[in-house]
Amino acid sequence: MRIDIDRDRLVETMKEQAEIGATDDGGLHRLTLSDADREVRDWFRDRMEAAGLSVRVDEMGNMFGRRPGADPDAGTVLLGSHLDSQPNGGIYDGPLGVIAALEFVRTLEDEGIETDHPIEVVNWTNEEGSRFQPAMMSSGVWAGEIPLEEAYDTTDADGIRFEDALEEIGYRGDVPAEPTREYDAALELHVEQGPYLEQEERDVGVVTGIVGLRWGEVTFTGQANHSGTTPMHYRSDALVAASDVIGQVRRIPGTLGERTVGTTGALEVEPGSINIVPETVRFTVDFRDPDDDVADEAIERVKAEVAAAADREGVDWEYERRMDAASVTFPDRCVDAVRSAAADLGYDARELVSGAGHDATYMASVCDTAMVFAVSEGGKSHTPEEYTSWDDCYAAANTLANAALDLAGVAERTTGGDDADV
Amino acid sequence: MRIDIDRDRLVETMKEQAEIGATDDGGLHRLTLSDADREVRDWFRDRMEAAGLSVRVDEMGNMFGRRPGADPDAGTVLLGSHLDSQPNGGIYDGPLGVIAALEFVRTLEDEGIETDHPIEVVNWTNEEGSRFQPAMMSSGVWAGEIPLEEAYDTTDADGIRFEDALEEIGYRGDVPAEPTREYDAALELHVEQGPYLEQEERDVGVVTGIVGLRWGEVTFTGQANHSGTTPMHYRSDALVAASDVIGQVRRIPGTLGERTVGTTGALEVEPGSINIVPETVRFTVDFRDPDDDVADEAIERVKAEVAAAADREGVDWEYERRMDAASVTFPDRCVDAVRSAAADLGYDARELVSGAGHDATYMASVCDTAMVFAVSEGGKSHTPEEYTSWDDCYAAANTLANAALDLAGVAERTTGGDDADV
Repeated sequence: MRIDIDRDRLVETMKEQAEIGATDDGGLHRLTLSDADREVRDWFRDRMEAAGLSVRVDEMGNMFGRRPGADPDAGTVLLGSHLDSQPNGGIYDGPLGVIAALEFVRTLEDEGIETDHPIEVVNWTNEEGSRFQPAMMSSGVWAGEIPLEEAYDTTDADGIRFEDALEEIGYRGDVPAEPTREYDAALELHVEQGPYLEQEERDVGVVTGIVGLRWGEVTFTGQANHSGTTPMHYRSDALVAASDVIGQVRRIPGTLGERTVGTTGALEVEPGSINIVPETVRFTVDFRDPDDDVADEAIERVKAEVAAAADREGVDWEYERRMDAASVTFPDRCVDAVRSAAADLGYDARELVSGAGHDATYMASVCDTAMVFAVSEGGKSHTPEEYTSWDDCYAAANTLANAALDLAGVAERTTGGDDADV
Repeated sequence: MRIDIDRDRLVETMKEQAEIGATDDGGLHRLTLSDADREVRDWFRDRMEAAGLSVRVDEMGNMFGRRPGADPDAGTVLLGSHLDSQPNGGIYDGPLGVIAALEFVRTLEDEGIETDHPIEVVNWTNEEGSRFQPAMMSSGVWAGEIPLEEAYDTTDADGIRFEDALEEIGYRGDVPAEPTREYDAALELHVEQGPYLEQEERDVGVVTGIVGLRWGEVTFTGQANHSGTTPMHYRSDALVAASDVIGQVRRIPGTLGERTVGTTGALEVEPGSINIVPETVRFTVDFRDPDDDVADEAIERVKAEVAAAADREGVDWEYERRMDAASVTFPDRCVDAVRSAAADLGYDARELVSGAGHDATYMASVCDTAMVFAVSEGGKSHTPEEYTSWDDCYAAANTLANAALDLAGVAERTTGGDDADV
């Protein structure tokens, strides 16, 4: 059995949420636990209640809207993403997955469909990690991977504690931040944030897993010296050593794997004056690959390059591990549900591994999980220029809805008719 | 005729000045036009007056102490450097040249020597350029190379105007900031700020000129993208392009000249986040060589590397010229005076070209000029660790004194005797 969500209502609801925290250039500035976040949460609570869901909020502010199932023994099917945004981000990253889950439940109501499994729609708190780090904080606490107290004590740039900010917007709930139900399966729809679907002119993405990630920080310490009076052969230039390594970070992926990526995104120079040879340079490395062994190998190679560059320049070096996240392979039954839904709907789907972390990473540690990707024009992400056409939003949301229906099982249909089938 | 300065008095006077603005670690924090600068100026005015000099202060706060000469037609011999310091700098950079000039005049008084030429001791305002830019500002105004109003309107990091700060410490004088006398010759003693003299175990440096300098700023603009979801071949990474160029800045000097130096001292990355491919990178280049053609060639080569790196990464580039300073070759008669003084005193001297700019750069545009360098241990500069032994201070100051005496000419000697000769 296939259902068809209401495209116009999906678009209208997406536009409604995009007004809360809207920026002048069509983007979204809705940092977690801000006034805009409170406002969108109030709005979303109303929308969930209007769809007949019973809403609960847990200690991390995660919002769950529950629709009961027919089978008292069946575990819950969990669907959702996040409503917070990056600073000056786009309107699709997060909200599309939450609104699509809501739209699925609305469609079940329209169609009078009772599912075997209970269904929950979720809005995870602080997925972005731009105000409070780390990213995916609250699905991480819920999954038992991040201690609650550690999350509560995190502070933003102004020194405000996460717990206090959560209290301030009135979204510190009483429900424990843990799986308080038995969860059978989970699905998250998210924008791709990469170019593959658009480049191959696909309709929708079937996500088979999430890449392994390795984050580190390199520090080179040389000798600050006058740029005019210090001969080249007397120098220990920390920035020259860093440059050597950054060139290798660019090259290492091409020697390892088709999907390996490596990035130096941040770099700081001290003392940072035009006429002083750099003494200290700190920079980040970020390597990812679907295969954890490849990600590990990339880090080993970059460390070897760090040591070699330090030798050449006569500088000291340190490598600090910042984060390791193992790759995730989604189980077949959930990936199959997404794959079949897309195929049955006639969409041209591509299977891919997510290069970014998502709340689905943590959901997958609790129950069988998969993801649906919507096309991202030009792969643009974390910018107001982020764009997914309404057609692509609809295709992804419809895929999510039908995959979710597959996982939740149809117990009874009281209204509607064949014309709702696709 | 040779004279011998008072080593103990030189050391004592150096120690006195070093107490004004002293830091806990033995360095000096005496930013231009600060309270510490006022204090050292008051102290120095007293010392000059006690040495029989008539003091005048010009519109830029430059302090001149004049000792008349016997020949009414003879131009003035100008001697000095600066008393301001870098933030947390050393106690020798600047003050040694000013105190050595004072000590020369004191020795003339002790020895009852009247010179043919008038002598002036000078303390130039704001040589360092760390609070108000550019460096060597006030000798630059005096030489007519920097407009007075432009200097006055310069502001520090707190938005305070140079002119107001000068007024505030009471050192905005009435004398025009220009050569109000005829100047015949000038000498500046300064610490080397480089390693050559110490490495070759020399006593003193005979400076034959100042290198040509080229400063520029490169901007690469690529595309900010998600570090996890953007395949390597879709990237336009501004930091990778910058790294390519920085490696070349390290290599170009070795292809051009023995004395060529090239440095990237400052670099900024935007947005500068671990998981975002860098969109914009700005960095500086600083090339110097005694030969201006070589310095120009270095800039041409780096621009070619900038264009090539931009092509490889698919980023846009801009090159902005920040400063060009032509090299200075000191005239033989002044260099000979320094060379002969060092030789007659039995010092093992090395001739070198200054890799740093000095007030002597501007003095040289007004009259024949040369410099004396004192040994810098390890070449350390702009740090509290800057060090020149008292023996090396004495050797350089004595060289300055005898070179100055040579240029000023002895008209009459009324006291002292042969025992003052070396």
